[in-house]
Amino acid sequence: VTGPEPLPPAPDVEVIGLDADDTLWHNESFYADAGATFAEIIAPWIPDGEDVASRHYETERRNLELFGYGAKGFTLSMIETAIELSGGRVSSAAIGELLALGKRMLAHPVDLLDGVREAVERLAEHHRLVVVTKGDLFHQEQKFAASGLDALVDRVEVVSEKDVRTYRSVIGRVGVDPSRFLMVGNSVRSDVLPPIEAGGHAAHVPYEITWVHEHVDDAPVAFPVLPSLSAFADWITTR
Amino acid sequence: VTGPEPLPPAPDVEVIGLDADDTLWHNESFYADAGATFAEIIAPWIPDGEDVASRHYETERRNLELFGYGAKGFTLSMIETAIELSGGRVSSAAIGELLALGKRMLAHPVDLLDGVREAVERLAEHHRLVVVTKGDLFHQEQKFAASGLDALVDRVEVVSEKDVRTYRSVIGRVGVDPSRFLMVGNSVRSDVLPPIEAGGHAAHVPYEITWVHEHVDDAPVAFPVLPSLSAFADWITTR
Repeated sequence: VTGPEPLPPAPDVEVIGLDADDTLWHNESFYADAGATFAEIIAPWIPDGEDVASRHYETERRNLELFGYGAKGFTLSMIETAIELSGGRVSSAAIGELLALGKRMLAHPVDLLDGVREAVERLAEHHRLVVVTKGDLFHQEQKFAASGLDALVDRVEVVSEKDVRTYRSVIGRVGVDPSRFLMVGNSVRSDVLPPIEAGGHAAHVPYEITWVHEHVDDAPVAFPVLPSLSAFADWITTR
Repeated sequence: VTGPEPLPPAPDVEVIGLDADDTLWHNESFYADAGATFAEIIAPWIPDGEDVASRHYETERRNLELFGYGAKGFTLSMIETAIELSGGRVSSAAIGELLALGKRMLAHPVDLLDGVREAVERLAEHHRLVVVTKGDLFHQEQKFAASGLDALVDRVEVVSEKDVRTYRSVIGRVGVDPSRFLMVGNSVRSDVLPPIEAGGHAAHVPYEITWVHEHVDDAPVAFPVLPSLSAFADWITTR
C-alpha cells in the first residue's frame, strides 16, 4: 500500500496492541483449506462451474449481522450455502461432514507464525502488550491459552468489531493517551485505519492471504508496512 | 434452596453485578420454545418415544468445550442431533428449517422481565452496575444494546465461563475490594456460588425455568433468595 518508501521513525509508545488471527498465528489459511474441503464435500450436488467460495462468502456477509465473526458462523453459513446451492438435494450425511469440518476448525492446534514467539518476547521487554482480537470470545480465549503467549501479554480484549469506537474504548480501558498506543496487525481495515482515526498509531504486517472482507483498495493515510512481526519488533525497539 | 427463612441484612456494597439472561430479560423460555419446535420439525424421522430434548442436551454438553454457550452452538447441536437421531435420514429441507429457527433465536427482540427497568433504575442511584453475562460476545452485546439499559450500567463483561477465576478478574477490572461487590442472578451455579467463593456477596433471583446445565442440588453456603429483581432492589436499597 505504501510501496518501497523508507520507514518513518517509530513513535514513542507505551502500549502495543497486537492483532491475533494472521498476525500471531495462522488463521486465514485454515479457512481457505476448509473452504476447499467444503467445495469437495458438496461437489456431487452442485452444478458444474458454480463458484462455491463466492456463494459461501455471500452467505457469510448476509449472516454477519446475526452471527458475527468466527468458525461457528462460518459453519452455519456452509450448511446454509450447501442447502441453497443444491436446491435442497444435499444429503444429511454431507451436512454431517460439514459439521465435522467446523469442529476440526475449532479444535485446530494454534500454529504461531515464524518468529512470533521471539518477537513478542522482545516487544514485552519495553512495552505493555494487549491482544485485540475480533471474533468468537470462547474460541479466541482458547486459542490464546494454547498459544503459550499469555505470560507476555497484559490483557486480551476480544471484541465483536474493530472500529474506531472499539479502539477508543480499548485505549480507555488500558489507561493510556491514544498517542502512546500503537496497533499492529495484518488487516488495514481492522488493525490500521481505525486505531489511527482514534488518535493512535498503527503498523501493517501483511499475511500471505487476506480475507476478501478485510480488503481495502485505497487507504486514506500512510502507515508503515513491515514484512513480519520480527521486522516490526526491530523497528519499534530501535527507535 | 434456603427455604422461607428471614432475609439477612443486605451487605454494604459499592458495585452490583447483574446477570443478564433470565435475570434482566427472558432467555430460557425462548430456548424451551425452540426445543419444542425442534422436536416438531424432526418428528417425521424420529422413532416414537425418543426423548429429543435429552438427546439434544447430551449433544450440547459434549460440544460445550468446542462451542461454548449461545444460540449458534445450540443450532449446530440441533443439526447434529437431528442427523444422529434420524440415522442420517432427516431431509436437508428440515435442516434448513433448523437453521431458520436458530436465526430467529438470534434475531429475537429483547423482552425484559417485569419490573426490571424500574429496579435497575433504582439500583443505579446508589451503586455502580456491571452486567456479567456468559455466552456469545456478539449476541450478548446486541441484546444489551437492544435492552435500553445501557445508560444505567457502567460496563458489560461478556465472559466465556462464570467461575471463581472469572469473578476475581471482573472484580479486579472493576476496581473494588471483593467485599464491596455483590452479584445477583438466576443461576446458583454461575451467579451465586463463584462470586461468594471469590470473596464477594451474592443474591439469587430464580427464573421460572432453570436450564438443566445450571442446576445445583445442594448449595454448600447460605445466600438470600428473592422473588424478583424489584424485591432485590428493595432489599439492597433499604439496608
